[in-house]
Amino acid sequence: MSNCIIAQSGGPTSVINASLGGCIEKALEIESINKIYGSTNGIVGILNDNIIDLTNIFKNNIEKLETLKTTPGMYLGSCRFKLEDPKKDNSQFKLIFKTFEKYQIKYFFYIGGNDSMDTVMKLSIYAKENNYEVKVIGIPKTIDNDLFGTDHTPGYGSCAKYIATTMLEVAHDTYIYDMESVTIVEIMGRHAGWLTSAAALSKNHYFDGPDLIYLPEIPFSKKQFLQDIVKIQKTKKNIIIAVSEGIKDKTGDFISSTSSTKDAFGHFPLSGTGKSLENLVKSSLKCKVRSIELNVLQRSAMHIASLTDINEAVLVGKKAVELAIMGKSGEMIVFNRISNNPYAIEISSIDISLVANKEKIVPREWINKEGNHINQELIDYMKPLIIGEPSLKFNNGLPLYVNINHLINN
Amino acid sequence: MSNCIIAQSGGPTSVINASLGGCIEKALEIESINKIYGSTNGIVGILNDNIIDLTNIFKNNIEKLETLKTTPGMYLGSCRFKLEDPKKDNSQFKLIFKTFEKYQIKYFFYIGGNDSMDTVMKLSIYAKENNYEVKVIGIPKTIDNDLFGTDHTPGYGSCAKYIATTMLEVAHDTYIYDMESVTIVEIMGRHAGWLTSAAALSKNHYFDGPDLIYLPEIPFSKKQFLQDIVKIQKTKKNIIIAVSEGIKDKTGDFISSTSSTKDAFGHFPLSGTGKSLENLVKSSLKCKVRSIELNVLQRSAMHIASLTDINEAVLVGKKAVELAIMGKSGEMIVFNRISNNPYAIEISSIDISLVANKEKIVPREWINKEGNHINQELIDYMKPLIIGEPSLKFNNGLPLYVNINHLINN
Repeated sequence: MSNCIIAQSGGPTSVINASLGGCIEKALEIESINKIYGSTNGIVGILNDNIIDLTNIFKNNIEKLETLKTTPGMYLGSCRFKLEDPKKDNSQFKLIFKTFEKYQIKYFFYIGGNDSMDTVMKLSIYAKENNYEVKVIGIPKTIDNDLFGTDHTPGYGSCAKYIATTMLEVAHDTYIYDMESVTIVEIMGRHAGWLTSAAALSKNHYFDGPDLIYLPEIPFSKKQFLQDIVKIQKTKKNIIIAVSEGIKDKTGDFISSTSSTKDAFGHFPLSGTGKSLENLVKSSLKCKVRSIELNVLQRSAMHIASLTDINEAVLVGKKAVELAIMGKSGEMIVFNRISNNPYAIEISSIDISLVANKEKIVPREWINKEGNHINQELIDYMKPLIIGEPSLKFNNGLPLYVNINHLINN
Repeated sequence: MSNCIIAQSGGPTSVINASLGGCIEKALEIESINKIYGSTNGIVGILNDNIIDLTNIFKNNIEKLETLKTTPGMYLGSCRFKLEDPKKDNSQFKLIFKTFEKYQIKYFFYIGGNDSMDTVMKLSIYAKENNYEVKVIGIPKTIDNDLFGTDHTPGYGSCAKYIATTMLEVAHDTYIYDMESVTIVEIMGRHAGWLTSAAALSKNHYFDGPDLIYLPEIPFSKKQFLQDIVKIQKTKKNIIIAVSEGIKDKTGDFISSTSSTKDAFGHFPLSGTGKSLENLVKSSLKCKVRSIELNVLQRSAMHIASLTDINEAVLVGKKAVELAIMGKSGEMIVFNRISNNPYAIEISSIDISLVANKEKIVPREWINKEGNHINQELIDYMKPLIIGEPSLKFNNGLPLYVNINHLINN
């Protein structure tokens, strides 16, 4: 008999708990797994021995497990923590494997994005080199869809659905006045334009979707931006623009004002791209302008998540357990797309070294020639990922979610 | 045989089209009503003779009528237009009644807020004084809940539900990190705190709702605000604050102000209330701070609207037609609350002069003594208004809405 431990890391997505739920569900089925532990606040919980017993919470509570799968945020809490290079300092690794030994951990599942896969890689290599039996598997999640080696990432589809739905509802809010207006919607995505591209999915039988789409992949020119608007204004009164928070000018400087404080991974937190462009349009063109920042709602709005995304997130959680039981380690679960219409995927895994610390951006050929909109190939790629709606339970008018009390009341 | 005309005015709500749908549905049932017209862009459409025939669109299309009831924005378009005082200049009134004559209008239904009720009042008085047969009825709508004479306004409940749901989902996004943080959520409401108060409805069995709530009814002190935060930080790591966009200091100046940091274009961006407070906390206290502006999403997110609100909005539309047929004019439909638990209302009407150009703010006794949270009476008042969810149809992963093509493609 042996035990497993699960942790979550990085920014939340609507479906990271669906992967946790899938992982727990499968582990409960495996006879050779005795206890299922959860580490609070990612790898930090293992370093600090903040471990909870998930078996007790979910074993005889299928309803709670199902609700977990449609709960936003991160049930186990998160961290932004980069492990040292063990060749320079292996003290963190000693501590982690001491905790693993204490709880008789044979399998460690880490649900996260780029940075978390770095942790998976380091731990799996350290385990192998030091003859620890622990198998380490990475479960992908990120709204940004920027992980290498996988067709798409769990979390992306729900965020894309929120963005598309919101763009359509913003259009209904925009076209009501008989006057010239520009509406700028700022969407998450520091380096990759996958999320901003999803704004184009708002197109339906009466709405063309945003008139202009600016991604971080294309150097941004404010002169060209204003010309793009003026050109469309010749035939259209109300203009809607989707813009990525991460757009940069040709010298590589962000259009938004950047914070001077780096986060734990050396990133400069961004804010205000939409606001900056709003001010630019306001001072340059004579029309009503407003900007809308979708902010954290796009990654936490489970009430408009994609059922396709939720189901796939559950499946990657389950697959991780299956692979670990088979003795695999140092791998991340991936999707391969079999076909677009009908949409079909296959779930497999790849070596973590092919994933960790890398970023997948939108290919140039999926962006239009002018660099201010996207091509049909990208729409066809995104479209299946937002299909389906979860059937949430509501209580007192609010969606019913689950939570570990000590996390939300700290 | 006679005809009726309907128009919509002011800012959108998620359910203003539900009232339009109710109005059309009832008018279709009334044998003495022949044609149902719609004026595009409110009263401006009547002034400019931009009139469409709604009978043709909806008479034999019940499905479209039902979809209209769950479509956000304003199907007929909106305006912000105040009629002249007819005693000073009656040219607009002559024009309006000429259009009424041309289309043989006997009933005019205006769906709107404070300003729109001024139009209803002026037109009904003008009709009476000039012996026109036209009956004018006001159908209330406003997310702000600030109309006199009614227990609450259609549109408020859906916005409140969006705010409460979002606050809960923001909480799930906030409590995941094991570090001190302050999250400030800016909510609509220039003069009345009804919407910001709705943030308190996010309270459930594990989340207490926002720790601090600041309404425009109470003069805002930056010093007290920082003290409030520091006090809570003694026992709690993650603080969530709901703040109205309209908070003012004791001299009556809005808190939203100019940022001191230039953006990429060398402008000082005019920041919102939330952003101002974010900067204040950032410069005064050592912790992670972020602000979230709910923006227009709160008034257009039909996908998380309140079914109670939708149903009531349909009912006020129907009631308006019933009253007009009975010969009433110069009245607005109102709700009277019969009981809170179980929730029950009665629909009647009041003289428009009691409503027009007035604002109803949150009573002082429903706000706590310190002026930084609300009392249970207000929670009990709001709670029934967010109950129930619409069953929307989805197509390609997007909610299915209706639209007049010329409005959204202009």
